[in-house]
Amino acid sequence: MASNDVTLEELEAAIRNVPDFPQEGIQFKDITPVLGNARLLDGSISHLLGEHTADTVNVVAGIDARGFIFGAAMARELGVGFVPIRKKGKLPWQTHEESYDLEYGSNTIAIHTDAVTNGHRVLLVDDLLATGGTAAAAANLVAKAGGRVVESVFFIELGFLDGRAKMGDVPVRALVKY
Amino acid sequence: MASNDVTLEELEAAIRNVPDFPQEGIQFKDITPVLGNARLLDGSISHLLGEHTADTVNVVAGIDARGFIFGAAMARELGVGFVPIRKKGKLPWQTHEESYDLEYGSNTIAIHTDAVTNGHRVLLVDDLLATGGTAAAAANLVAKAGGRVVESVFFIELGFLDGRAKMGDVPVRALVKY
Repeated sequence: MASNDVTLEELEAAIRNVPDFPQEGIQFKDITPVLGNARLLDGSISHLLGEHTADTVNVVAGIDARGFIFGAAMARELGVGFVPIRKKGKLPWQTHEESYDLEYGSNTIAIHTDAVTNGHRVLLVDDLLATGGTAAAAANLVAKAGGRVVESVFFIELGFLDGRAKMGDVPVRALVKY
Repeated sequence: MASNDVTLEELEAAIRNVPDFPQEGIQFKDITPVLGNARLLDGSISHLLGEHTADTVNVVAGIDARGFIFGAAMARELGVGFVPIRKKGKLPWQTHEESYDLEYGSNTIAIHTDAVTNGHRVLLVDDLLATGGTAAAAANLVAKAGGRVVESVFFIELGFLDGRAKMGDVPVRALVKY
């Protein structure tokens, strides 16, 4: 499907704010109204891809689970493959792993060791950039697998959490910022 | 992207068998080599859609997490919206819930109550039909939300587990059967 005329303002207007989820005091940004609307879903994919083509990107990597929703559709639009980055223990074959700190405890994510061809340019996607722990770990996983994240794109960025600071040299782009 | 000439035999040949995952004695069918290949990813989406168009399907529902990979790309191809069906506690807004038995214990999945317009025809997708517990619960969730699953499609069906028997009147189709 060709890119359409959906504006970033329309995407932002469709996000549903859910107070106190997953815990009291958090304003959760619910993107399901965007996904459920054919025109906005299509516009999201187009905006997430931006100017990228199969000349600038060899593979799209999406982060479990909402990154999967956007990532495979983006890969198909570009005509490249899709790579899932998942929580530890979910990928069945040989993996690289990367851990990062949470407010309480830590988390580990993984990528298949054969997911990326050496030197390939990877477009990394997730729905949300918050503290940046997951996204930075994902970029490290891509590097461990032999690739390079040319850009990390997010539907939403919570700017006040300064996740960009964790991304180092990896370019960051987000469609909607709070 | 137009449908291509990928055959079901090619898709089957690309599946990687991983012995003893997630536990000893299980032969896990790894679809990441399919996803990582642009041509096979595109062919998977085309085959999963089959003859469906926006005339036969109003929305595509995908089951967390690998159903998300196929589902959103299928929805975009049809020009309809995408609905995520998730494990309980993951969807932020008002939900319907449905529980089903596992070998040990039970599992609960959920759908947003506003995910489906009343009477809408839903194409349900997941990567794997095994015992059918998840898929049958997902079809029930669609019904609770006011929709009707016109077909449930799976990349892989483990026929020896007879998941079809749990699906009742819901038509079942799978690309690769074991």
